[in-house]
Amino acid sequence: MRGLFITFEGGEGAGKSTQARLLADHLRAHGHDVDLTREPGGTEAAEALRDFLLFGGHDLSARAEVLTHFAARADHVDRRILPALAQGRIVVCDRFADSTEAYQGYGVSHADTGLLDMIGQLRAMLPVQPDLTFVLQVPPDVARDRLRQRADGRADRYEAEDAAFHARVAAGFDAIARRDAARCHRIDASGDAGGVQQAIRAVLAPRLAGRGG
Amino acid sequence: MRGLFITFEGGEGAGKSTQARLLADHLRAHGHDVDLTREPGGTEAAEALRDFLLFGGHDLSARAEVLTHFAARADHVDRRILPALAQGRIVVCDRFADSTEAYQGYGVSHADTGLLDMIGQLRAMLPVQPDLTFVLQVPPDVARDRLRQRADGRADRYEAEDAAFHARVAAGFDAIARRDAARCHRIDASGDAGGVQQAIRAVLAPRLAGRGG
Repeated sequence: MRGLFITFEGGEGAGKSTQARLLADHLRAHGHDVDLTREPGGTEAAEALRDFLLFGGHDLSARAEVLTHFAARADHVDRRILPALAQGRIVVCDRFADSTEAYQGYGVSHADTGLLDMIGQLRAMLPVQPDLTFVLQVPPDVARDRLRQRADGRADRYEAEDAAFHARVAAGFDAIARRDAARCHRIDASGDAGGVQQAIRAVLAPRLAGRGG
Repeated sequence: MRGLFITFEGGEGAGKSTQARLLADHLRAHGHDVDLTREPGGTEAAEALRDFLLFGGHDLSARAEVLTHFAARADHVDRRILPALAQGRIVVCDRFADSTEAYQGYGVSHADTGLLDMIGQLRAMLPVQPDLTFVLQVPPDVARDRLRQRADGRADRYEAEDAAFHARVAAGFDAIARRDAARCHRIDASGDAGGVQQAIRAVLAPRLAGRGG
């Protein structure tokens, strides 16, 4: 049986990492073979590019930033995601191509059509697309409070951006979810983690029927 | 007046860097405003990606390596080449997209059609193409002797490859030069540097007519 490729998307403080981990734990507890991973990163080389992008302090052009994200993604896909899916595993990934479109296309570049076209072409070159995407949505004040509580002291390039930037990113995720409505499920993630996780499992359940576990 | 974008291509030991420098010196001596640059690299961020690619020791997938080269190229194009051309300068660049096609497409991936297609799509996304390309060609034994004499002690990822790899790269450059014959001029670079430079200037001369300098 071919695997299942599930991605989590959304802005800072939406709870993606928490929900991805809870879902992976749940699936494993029910006997599924799960690979929990994240972007940017997921392989040795892609994690090195993540550091370059998020903490390197380089002032890349918008096109260069997009291409570097897709370079890291290509390594992650080729070295980890495709092999896992070929083995029939469930891949749960914290961020994927939608994040590049929302952050670089809508956030950094203010929905510049040239850059959005380029991102669309790069997406189309990917040898695999997610089967199912959860787009976690929270009001800005909830996101801000969660980020404040995180406080691990190392704000990356995007966490340090202003409220207008994060509003553009949120609008971008919403546009993507409406466009790719068959793949993307918008989840109200403003409640407690347990309730959000229940909503996610309810969407996923029919896709697991017949997979065993 | 729009600038002029000249690239030098060829395998290791063909003398690209020497010829690019000699040409830049010659053009400057005749009053032209020249930006001499190189790939991978040419900007702060692209030079950092050059180090990542050539000396980082990362085992990137073929697709990821191609995309990282195009990421560095995008920064170089956006931050340096396009602004220089807009100012009417002559840009002389040691390696450009042909090198990615020859090294990654033909050398690393043995002319894999999927990867060559991807490289073709990425080339087509570039906002600028060279006006004129010199493809320097030398027999393998001449290239080997020149590399031995260089001996700066830091062999990069490609210099360290075997003879079969370099033969595939040379065949790749030859295929590109035949395909893009209007842009690419193959130069026999096995003679002394002065003679090779004369051959290059003879090709370039008609393109400089009317540019002043």
